Amino acid sequence: MSDVSSSSQDLSTLLLDVDDLAAVLENVGVDFFLDELIRQLAFDIGRFDPTAIEHKIRTGFNYDTPEHGLIEWMPTMVVGDVVSVKTVGYHPQNPVERGLPSVLATTSLYDTNTGGLVALTEATLLTALRTGAASAVITQAVAKEGPITLGVVGCGAQAVTQIHAISRVRKIERLIVTDVDQSTAESLAGRLPEAIVAPEVTTHTEFDEVIADLDVLVTATSVEPGHGPVVTLDHAPEHLHINAIGADFPGKTELPESYVRNPDVVVIPDVIEQCLAEGEAQHLNASELGPDMAEILERDWHALRSQQTIFDSTGWSYEDLIVASLFVAHAVPLELGTVVELQRAPTDPHDPYETLR
Amino acid sequence: MSDVSSSSQDLSTLLLDVDDLAAVLENVGVDFFLDELIRQLAFDIGRFDPTAIEHKIRTGFNYDTPEHGLIEWMPTMVVGDVVSVKTVGYHPQNPVERGLPSVLATTSLYDTNTGGLVALTEATLLTALRTGAASAVITQAVAKEGPITLGVVGCGAQAVTQIHAISRVRKIERLIVTDVDQSTAESLAGRLPEAIVAPEVTTHTEFDEVIADLDVLVTATSVEPGHGPVVTLDHAPEHLHINAIGADFPGKTELPESYVRNPDVVVIPDVIEQCLAEGEAQHLNASELGPDMAEILERDWHALRSQQTIFDSTGWSYEDLIVASLFVAHAVPLELGTVVELQRAPTDPHDPYETLR
Repeated sequence: MSDVSSSSQDLSTLLLDVDDLAAVLENVGVDFFLDELIRQLAFDIGRFDPTAIEHKIRTGFNYDTPEHGLIEWMPTMVVGDVVSVKTVGYHPQNPVERGLPSVLATTSLYDTNTGGLVALTEATLLTALRTGAASAVITQAVAKEGPITLGVVGCGAQAVTQIHAISRVRKIERLIVTDVDQSTAESLAGRLPEAIVAPEVTTHTEFDEVIADLDVLVTATSVEPGHGPVVTLDHAPEHLHINAIGADFPGKTELPESYVRNPDVVVIPDVIEQCLAEGEAQHLNASELGPDMAEILERDWHALRSQQTIFDSTGWSYEDLIVASLFVAHAVPLELGTVVELQRAPTDPHDPYETLR
Repeated sequence: MSDVSSSSQDLSTLLLDVDDLAAVLENVGVDFFLDELIRQLAFDIGRFDPTAIEHKIRTGFNYDTPEHGLIEWMPTMVVGDVVSVKTVGYHPQNPVERGLPSVLATTSLYDTNTGGLVALTEATLLTALRTGAASAVITQAVAKEGPITLGVVGCGAQAVTQIHAISRVRKIERLIVTDVDQSTAESLAGRLPEAIVAPEVTTHTEFDEVIADLDVLVTATSVEPGHGPVVTLDHAPEHLHINAIGADFPGKTELPESYVRNPDVVVIPDVIEQCLAEGEAQHLNASELGPDMAEILERDWHALRSQQTIFDSTGWSYEDLIVASLFVAHAVPLELGTVVELQRAPTDPHDPYETLR
């Protein structure tokens, strides 16, 4: 963990906007940053100690007025160092009605020495990067070794960072993609880094027919609750690894229930309680889960490479803390971002009106 | 409620720092602002409707490493309009070890139409103002009419806004104050607005002897959990109204348990669940509570003016939303604050790397 709190006793806050984040990636290189993030997640989560890292299950407001949406927060603390709170808004009507992304997120970092707000960063790009990197670390641990055929269902923003991050840990020999919206599937090629093999676009029906050829599958859809599954897995190869990243809400799942329930399929939750509530694991009991993400990264699970595995990626607030800290660690020496002083050390802490005199 | 979300579809965020808040108060006048805040709290809370205003009980991280402290958040939503999250750090060693306030707080306002972060404001001053104004609205509703003798235990920052706000709803004829630290008690006069009568400084023993002369009492101490009570109330007059604002933690109470338990004393909680957990009411059952803050402000409770009453003010996140919205409403036409764009509407919402090209 990068220490973001060491020089923060002056109460200043570092703001990182989209342009600052882009400048970090341009300065260090997107591939380099992604490699670093993958290593950092593997390192920090592999050494996860629940007495040193505390998190709260995400909670928030879920509403139907003025229209369906939610605002929720995901808090994590590195004991003795920093508290991170990612606040996420999800408003599915944003793209159509306002030309805005459906997900808007920011991450705040607080110094546990002083309580001061150390940094506030845009977190929509951060979320896509950390979700991709999380899939990469688990793919690296449990997917077939050597070049792979990768299938992707859902070709939106998450697909880009999923494919990109996985390409950093496995050579992607073939890439087969599908989307309910054909134009989204077809535009994917133009959104992927150039080094990645050109995607073969299929219909959902065609996609189900090539499942037997896949080594790794990513599901990254925004299927409505109750409208899954998004793939048929009757012909899944015996070593298929799935990164299922869309499920994050009660009733919202992407995989066939029978497949997830199959005792031969190893379900790897990122956050056990959260996966049981809103992940692919929502049909399972805790005793039916495989090793969790931290256990997978803690030691070698070579045997899983020849088994059917599912990474149930609901999104862990600790991943948000790690990616935000990494951006801050790069931004500071590059002198990127804007420093503001929302607060100031008062001369007399007993005088609330001091600034008025 | 001021509508803070109406013009926010551009994804910009208004930052209000301590100087911006001071400038608002200088422009409109502190007395005017406090009067307006008192009216707004009375109006909004008196019309409180739990289907229109939702709040989450405050929660957070409480730790002993690197030293005792906590970071917690207090969320409230005005349905169809705005979500407010105040994040509060409490680090009692800050003043001695770092010259920083023990409480550092910021409030974030999110638009429930888009999920965007509309405003981020310093909230330490806001907290002192809203806590004072909350005591004022309850004092106005249930304390003796006409000029009053006011007693204050604890002469820190909160005492200033308590006395100031109460002075806007009752003429303070006599002001008797005490503090465990004599110098804090003596410096209070210099921190109060000039129009307020000079405080008579007493020892705790002398203070207990003048209890019989008081009409209204404020307790605003940072007594350690388990170290209360901070006053003896054996000679409390039959109409005494107490604004107890220090209790906000399990075990931390300021008033004698026997007094709070006395069935003739009407305990007015601000947030029932929170008061039962960490307020003066932590020794009571829900059935032993009087009308809550919203019920008090909803209609006339004239009869309570001749009874012993306690306002159990643990701090309501809705108050934080109201005071933050009021500052934003003044700052915008005055062109105060700094507008930043952490996020931007993308040309292609499916392309997370758009800003890199």
